Amino acid sequence: MSHNTFGHLFRVTTWGESHGPAIGCVIDGCPPGIRFTQAEIQADLDKRRPGQSRFVTQRREPDEVRILSGVLPDEDGETLVTTGTPISMLIENVDQRSKDYGEIARRFRPGHADFTYETKYGLRDYRGGGRSSARETATRVAAGALARKIVPGMQVRGALVAMGDKEIDRANWDWDFIGDAENPFFTPDPQSVPVFADYLDGIRKAGSSVGAVIELVAEGVPAGLGAPIYAKLDQEICANLMSINAVKGVEIGNGFEAARITGEENADEMRMGNDGRPHFLSNHAGGILGGISTGEPIVARFAVKPTSSILTPRRSVDKDGNEVDVQTKGRHDPCVGIRAVPIGEAMLACAIADHYLRHRGQTGRI
Amino acid sequence: MSHNTFGHLFRVTTWGESHGPAIGCVIDGCPPGIRFTQAEIQADLDKRRPGQSRFVTQRREPDEVRILSGVLPDEDGETLVTTGTPISMLIENVDQRSKDYGEIARRFRPGHADFTYETKYGLRDYRGGGRSSARETATRVAAGALARKIVPGMQVRGALVAMGDKEIDRANWDWDFIGDAENPFFTPDPQSVPVFADYLDGIRKAGSSVGAVIELVAEGVPAGLGAPIYAKLDQEICANLMSINAVKGVEIGNGFEAARITGEENADEMRMGNDGRPHFLSNHAGGILGGISTGEPIVARFAVKPTSSILTPRRSVDKDGNEVDVQTKGRHDPCVGIRAVPIGEAMLACAIADHYLRHRGQTGRI
Amino acid sequence: MSHNTFGHLFRVTTWGESHGPAIGCVIDGCPPGIRFTQAEIQADLDKRRPGQSRFVTQRREPDEVRILSGVLPDEDGETLVTTGTPISMLIENVDQRSKDYGEIARRFRPGHADFTYETKYGLRDYRGGGRSSARETATRVAAGALARKIVPGMQVRGALVAMGDKEIDRANWDWDFIGDAENPFFTPDPQSVPVFADYLDGIRKAGSSVGAVIELVAEGVPAGLGAPIYAKLDQEICANLMSINAVKGVEIGNGFEAARITGEENADEMRMGNDGRPHFLSNHAGGILGGISTGEPIVARFAVKPTSSILTPRRSVDKDGNEVDVQTKGRHDPCVGIRAVPIGEAMLACAIADHYLRHRGQTGRI
Amino acid sequence: MSHNTFGHLFRVTTWGESHGPAIGCVIDGCPPGIRFTQAEIQADLDKRRPGQSRFVTQRREPDEVRILSGVLPDEDGETLVTTGTPISMLIENVDQRSKDYGEIARRFRPGHADFTYETKYGLRDYRGGGRSSARETATRVAAGALARKIVPGMQVRGALVAMGDKEIDRANWDWDFIGDAENPFFTPDPQSVPVFADYLDGIRKAGSSVGAVIELVAEGVPAGLGAPIYAKLDQEICANLMSINAVKGVEIGNGFEAARITGEENADEMRMGNDGRPHFLSNHAGGILGGISTGEPIVARFAVKPTSSILTPRRSVDKDGNEVDVQTKGRHDPCVGIRAVPIGEAMLACAIADHYLRHRGQTGRI
Repeated sequence: MSHNTFGHLFRVTTWGESHGPAIGCVIDGCPPGIRFTQAEIQADLDKRRPGQSRFVTQRREPDEVRILSGVLPDEDGETLVTTGTPISMLIENVDQRSKDYGEIARRFRPGHADFTYETKYGLRDYRGGGRSSARETATRVAAGALARKIVPGMQVRGALVAMGDKEIDRANWDWDFIGDAENPFFTPDPQSVPVFADYLDGIRKAGSSVGAVIELVAEGVPAGLGAPIYAKLDQEICANLMSINAVKGVEIGNGFEAARITGEENADEMRMGNDGRPHFLSNHAGGILGGISTGEPIVARFAVKPTSSILTPRRSVDKDGNEVDVQTKGRHDPCVGIRAVPIGEAMLACAIADHYLRHRGQTGRI
Repeated sequence: MSHNTFGHLFRVTTWGESHGPAIGCVIDGCPPGIRFTQAEIQADLDKRRPGQSRFVTQRREPDEVRILSGVLPDEDGETLVTTGTPISMLIENVDQRSKDYGEIARRFRPGHADFTYETKYGLRDYRGGGRSSARETATRVAAGALARKIVPGMQVRGALVAMGDKEIDRANWDWDFIGDAENPFFTPDPQSVPVFADYLDGIRKAGSSVGAVIELVAEGVPAGLGAPIYAKLDQEICANLMSINAVKGVEIGNGFEAARITGEENADEMRMGNDGRPHFLSNHAGGILGGISTGEPIVARFAVKPTSSILTPRRSVDKDGNEVDVQTKGRHDPCVGIRAVPIGEAMLACAIADHYLRHRGQTGRI
Repeated sequence: MSHNTFGHLFRVTTWGESHGPAIGCVIDGCPPGIRFTQAEIQADLDKRRPGQSRFVTQRREPDEVRILSGVLPDEDGETLVTTGTPISMLIENVDQRSKDYGEIARRFRPGHADFTYETKYGLRDYRGGGRSSARETATRVAAGALARKIVPGMQVRGALVAMGDKEIDRANWDWDFIGDAENPFFTPDPQSVPVFADYLDGIRKAGSSVGAVIELVAEGVPAGLGAPIYAKLDQEICANLMSINAVKGVEIGNGFEAARITGEENADEMRMGNDGRPHFLSNHAGGILGGISTGEPIVARFAVKPTSSILTPRRSVDKDGNEVDVQTKGRHDPCVGIRAVPIGEAMLACAIADHYLRHRGQTGRI
Repeated sequence: MSHNTFGHLFRVTTWGESHGPAIGCVIDGCPPGIRFTQAEIQADLDKRRPGQSRFVTQRREPDEVRILSGVLPDEDGETLVTTGTPISMLIENVDQRSKDYGEIARRFRPGHADFTYETKYGLRDYRGGGRSSARETATRVAAGALARKIVPGMQVRGALVAMGDKEIDRANWDWDFIGDAENPFFTPDPQSVPVFADYLDGIRKAGSSVGAVIELVAEGVPAGLGAPIYAKLDQEICANLMSINAVKGVEIGNGFEAARITGEENADEMRMGNDGRPHFLSNHAGGILGGISTGEPIVARFAVKPTSSILTPRRSVDKDGNEVDVQTKGRHDPCVGIRAVPIGEAMLACAIADHYLRHRGQTGRI
């Protein structure tokens, strides 16, 4: 896999920095004849968009996507049809708030990639995080909106299941609640909202930040996608999720819990379903066995660290080797994990779409 | 990267099944002039080799590696020197114990990939697990032994830090103890040996199995390896580890713990070292920031599920749709996580070696 | 490399159709610290730009490139410095002359890709050639302008050496004449201008078209770039050139002529140069032996077929299976080979730049 | 695709040198359920095998292929069925004639890759040409034998159409004659045999060598395979052919001839066939338009240079910078182009097989 491209048949290349004129992506290998509307792409982008509650960064970006190639308009004037050629999407950067970056330009912020970028490249675009800005993820969401269309009947959803040391109560899980106007957290547990709100208000007012855990579920994925040992479906899902900024861990199905239990407890038993096909009586495997989908829902989780953009001064150094204290003022996400939910969904959708095409290519069994 | 190849400049392709005549790998892109001995490769293979204690499978395989291409013998007659062309390594399968596979050929073992392979390909090699046999991992260890040589001064080590619900005491951590003859578990904690032994004896006698967590540390990795967003060093380490059979979760540095703490607690502060270079005062990041190595030790962990080869009958179905009970008799690893330690080390070494070459290629800064 | 990306470390992805809002490319893996100006990119684009003489299509496109990411402005306000992150370049389509495409939409033009695109994808963008429009090549030229900067001291030049059955006289070769205002043909032979002009006027007035042969020379390429058997430098040069529309053949050095002569005549002898390094006494090999550069000038040639957009009606069929006659009216290039010169240069520069980085990565010998 | 691997879904990795213990290849991504026999692979290998007439090298290699993975035996005990996992094939090197390589080890043979390998890697395996030995091509032929099975109904054949300045008479073309016992040249023209024999006897006795042109034809390839601009079917065919040792030029359809004619002469007209599908009235395009197959036979040609292993002393230098004369004694092919015929067939089959799977993957239209 190469630097800014992911996928083998459904390939996505993204580009752009926080403070350049625009960001974007090129989707190469998309099947022809996929029908979608710009409004569908936009709907996914709006979920990730900043500025929608007091719990996310106040940067104001309309995140309006322009589709520059690879589609033909259908007769209804609204639907776009993919032609099989590369689909270029572009999102302009609008709110590049004027700011004095003088300090950041020379200082290595602790927990940020300033030092490593500078060491690797000998220079870096320090404005708003440059390439590692969360803005880049908008382009993934746009690509993911198209990826969702590739596998017929697939539904990919995500939820925030923990924030700092607060967890949801899974007994209250309600997918429909996630899109609720009263739910700024992508939590599936209505009762968690006041808990998270109180907690995050405290974090926010202290100029601090906190991490989160996101859970993703893809339903309607046919059995057979993936590969046995390398390029396993779970491997590529994990790789896609690990590519998201600030992600420090990923797991499939029961994940790390699997290390704590016995083979009897862990293996999912099978029985014939009423549809005359084998079914699993549990899903500890998270829908993947031996790197290949079982037909059960695919379940993945990832851990997002707290952003290191915090008010409390932290010890660091600058380019000249001076020891300095660094603090971050101004707009930032107190919990970057919140907006990671639609990003995770997009990356999961892309991984599955890619393997759907690969499976069809190698085996002809779809 | 695609099906049975991993890496972008240091590329490893593996092949082979449990019950074919041999297994092997081809290493492509290895720099010329790397010096090594067959004994060094063999030493790593011996760590993974089965049959060395009562806690691992009793399959008897000498795992003798043959090097078929890509090297020239040095004048000392023992040292091999890489020529820059593909290095083919082959390990014969010796102990293909005669066995009646009739039942397994038609039954889908719960927790195994039987059902998914059959669904994907329409047929499968059921003998000894076929391609998904743990034997395949020997070839990775061989490749990893070479990868360790690529980055000057790099040392990659691994340790088992938890088995089932038993954990080591990190206060007792002693790297030197891992190679100790009295230590069949790759544990760094001498006091954990009797605990693990008792626990695993019980598991083994019950025909059960249990999972484990492995921790890997790479020291001596220069700062600057990796990429900012995609093909991040941590992403490719995780992908490499997830490609190991039975792995269900991976994390870098403090991993999932990062989701539970605040930005103040998580960000590693920096100060100037006595060597006149910036140093980190802690290493929650696990040696990687923004996808690029910091120069601190790289720390990764992965969770291995318990093998589903267990004595207790489990409900399943067969190819004809009959509901059947499946149990596994005979040799198997009660804790496959034990032998995963050298495999993990190898995969970590490969990921870092690959990025070392990529960094040198793109930036010329090594 | 796959569908719309070429290169392994210096990777270029292009996108866009003739009649969409824009075309563009993303350059991924470019080394950091490369300095260039927008004017330099533009200068290369202007060489390819249509409408500059009566011998090329009259489509009027300013071909103004916008650089959207991956660079930082230098202090002089004009120089751009690459940061090592993806460089996105965009060129707007301005002159999408209104036209009734009704006929072309349903008819398969002989010699064009209408039938094959329709067969492959089930639909196609017929406006102005869609993805296979010569416009796409502008993005390659932009990428190539950057690629030229990667290898210090490299100079890549191209020349039209034959048009239809007219050939240049190599005795008159003058590189400086190619940029001459009186030379609309990229010919290095001043005496060929009136010959080509007369010939092509006849072709143009007849609504016909004619092919051409282009020769490319890269000087200043260090010895050692390439790979022995696969991913040979000559192989990747040929692949890059064959990806240009309408190219039907490629050759390196003396090419097909090598098949006609003996080993004594063909092999280039060597002697020590005054600089104390080995030199070649001839260059039949075109600067490449065993897939690896020799240090001599790299020489490649490619054959461009005559465009099939001609006035003479040709027999064909339409989507409904009706037999029809097809003719092309309006603007088109009577000899597309002319504008292929800067495109070929760009593709050659990209291939060499990629191998320069790969060589540095694998061997560290640069 | 990178160094020693070619193909995107049907991926072939080769390894091995002339004088190591063995050579081989790994085929990854082969569809499951492909049925073949070892004898079929062997039959193709035997066509390439040296020592079969006085016109090829007298090295004696049985070239017996061993298949080490990726297949299951069928019930007939002879047929092998691919399982979808990597197929490893190995051919032992038997005839490594003892020889004093002392001179060659230090001298750069003109026209060979000695100088470039040494420059690139700092060392080289000089025994028998090392990696660039023609022996490596045996592994391609083995892979190609399998590739031929991927596209139902496809037939790939090749012929030598010119040797030195002697050409066949196309009016005499007889495919069946190529396998004739009286035909040591792969020529399709029976009347050319005495001409080639006389000519080559003279070359051989003089210790000289001569080049050749090979023509390949693939029939039964469905329309729609390939890609519009990059990864064009013709591009990948040319890349595959250029990767063969000693190839200096490639062309598709009428190739370089297309540059000499007009659009009227070049474009293939279409009419409805009796089968109710569009057909082409000529095939100047060589079965490919816009990078995608038309359904007509795919036609490619490549030029092979004369081997530089000749008796006549040639001027060169050695590693110490001494000027020396180099001559080659002993067994070698006076016309390496002869044995290039089955190699070319194999590489063509691989390119088409790969695109067949890619087309099925992206479009689902097969």
